[in-house]
Amino acid sequence: MKPILFCFSDDDRLAQRLAATIDADLGAIRLHRFPDGESLVTLQQDCAGRDVILFCTLTDADRKTLPLYFAATTARELGARSVGLVAPYLAYMRQDHRFTPGQSISAQSYAELLCTLVDWLVTVDPHLHRIDSLSRIFSIPTVAVSAMPAVAEWIRTNIPDPVIVGPDHESAQWVDKVAHALSAPCMVLEKIRSGDRNVKVKGLDPDMVGRGHPVVIDDISSSGHTLAEVLKELSSVGIRTATCVVVHGVFTPGAVEMLQTLGAKQIASTNTVPHPTNSIDIIPPLAEAVKQRPRR
Amino acid sequence: MKPILFCFSDDDRLAQRLAATIDADLGAIRLHRFPDGESLVTLQQDCAGRDVILFCTLTDADRKTLPLYFAATTARELGARSVGLVAPYLAYMRQDHRFTPGQSISAQSYAELLCTLVDWLVTVDPHLHRIDSLSRIFSIPTVAVSAMPAVAEWIRTNIPDPVIVGPDHESAQWVDKVAHALSAPCMVLEKIRSGDRNVKVKGLDPDMVGRGHPVVIDDISSSGHTLAEVLKELSSVGIRTATCVVVHGVFTPGAVEMLQTLGAKQIASTNTVPHPTNSIDIIPPLAEAVKQRPRR
Repeated sequence: MKPILFCFSDDDRLAQRLAATIDADLGAIRLHRFPDGESLVTLQQDCAGRDVILFCTLTDADRKTLPLYFAATTARELGARSVGLVAPYLAYMRQDHRFTPGQSISAQSYAELLCTLVDWLVTVDPHLHRIDSLSRIFSIPTVAVSAMPAVAEWIRTNIPDPVIVGPDHESAQWVDKVAHALSAPCMVLEKIRSGDRNVKVKGLDPDMVGRGHPVVIDDISSSGHTLAEVLKELSSVGIRTATCVVVHGVFTPGAVEMLQTLGAKQIASTNTVPHPTNSIDIIPPLAEAVKQRPRR
Repeated sequence: MKPILFCFSDDDRLAQRLAATIDADLGAIRLHRFPDGESLVTLQQDCAGRDVILFCTLTDADRKTLPLYFAATTARELGARSVGLVAPYLAYMRQDHRFTPGQSISAQSYAELLCTLVDWLVTVDPHLHRIDSLSRIFSIPTVAVSAMPAVAEWIRTNIPDPVIVGPDHESAQWVDKVAHALSAPCMVLEKIRSGDRNVKVKGLDPDMVGRGHPVVIDDISSSGHTLAEVLKELSSVGIRTATCVVVHGVFTPGAVEMLQTLGAKQIASTNTVPHPTNSIDIIPPLAEAVKQRPRR
């Protein structure tokens, strides 16, 4: 029997395309909120004996995780043969260390929670930094799909003479890959963070960045402050426009407008997180990974 | 060493009183929200080798459960000897059955999740209906403290000649106890529910309710619609004022005003859920139960 893919509400169109590409039936989850804020999850198709795929991008994870847990539990109770999770954006990957005493290491504990819910996980470019592989924190099979081939292809089509710029050491892994694919020059800056919205970057080489049109690449942007600092650095050496490309556009209100004001001529994101800046499609590589998911 | 009680923000004063009554140290949890909505939990006191008590009333459970999970996990990682939960209001007890195919039975699965987090649970009057005991869904030791002695005492002090009214069959367990303690007449109505905010009650005995001042008792009120229907029934037989007493006042905006308009002269709730109607103190019986918690 075909697998059945259940989708959490805000990702409907992507889930439809994914289901079509992997030849799965498309199921629906009804999420009702009671007046007191509790949620009631209903799987609207029978999943007895079937491989169930839950599709849920994990922005706003504090609100989504309990409904996701209820959905996974219900699928198992109703006799699903397996339950997997496609989370184009994986939450809580940034708190990967106890920076001060008593802090939770939520990257690790969130991973452990997901491992109790599902049998496998497919995601796109998780924010791996101090934890260098998903297998260090996940005991279930995982696949981290790279958005970088799609990012490189988008730049090739849209930006003549790109110079790839990474805001910090963590971005080197993406920047090198994209620059190599495009045979484009690249540079990685150094970031100094002193708060959620308080960052500085340094190390810009004006000569190199002047050789073409700067394309600043990062994996996630939420407040937009890291990209903003790069745009300010570019501006300080006389470069007034640039393109910003992010995998996960978890933009908070006002972030995009701020970047535009600072010279971001174009802002492109992949569709791991639904957003008006989505212009890079990750469904084809995501579908390939889901097709090759672990099977019972 | 004394146990240490960590409190989630909105319950500060209650937690202070509970800690003082049970002779525990009062700890603090710092809950930081990143711009993207993820939360960072920090236990601000050392809990190595200590019995940790988490105090968290579980209204707004979808948002609170992940931070609670992070707090419990962190306490264990940091060497806590045991981790218990005092949840004056316990969430998700109402969805105790699969009413239509595919629905989650969240009472059961939420209980299972809490069992993975903590070693014991103390709560107040959980909404037990089809599931008749916490031990049917919790594999850890639990104590359900009854608020009814405190409710009866409040009525004795404040309402001369009370007639105790329960809106539905489920309320019979509380109504009988309170009426017996007060040697007051009582009656239990019949509720017909056709939606979250669509209920009717029937079975009111005008003669009996006319023997004193009606006190309508329920365990939880959120939208207020059940109590509202009782007030309308009372009004239809010429009784224009009544007192409403609830254990858990999970009132949604406008609920209290609606009840006042319909003749609720007084609305009293216990302090399991912080609310302006709190006038019945459950800290003394809660403290007794926590003192006798299971120990390692």
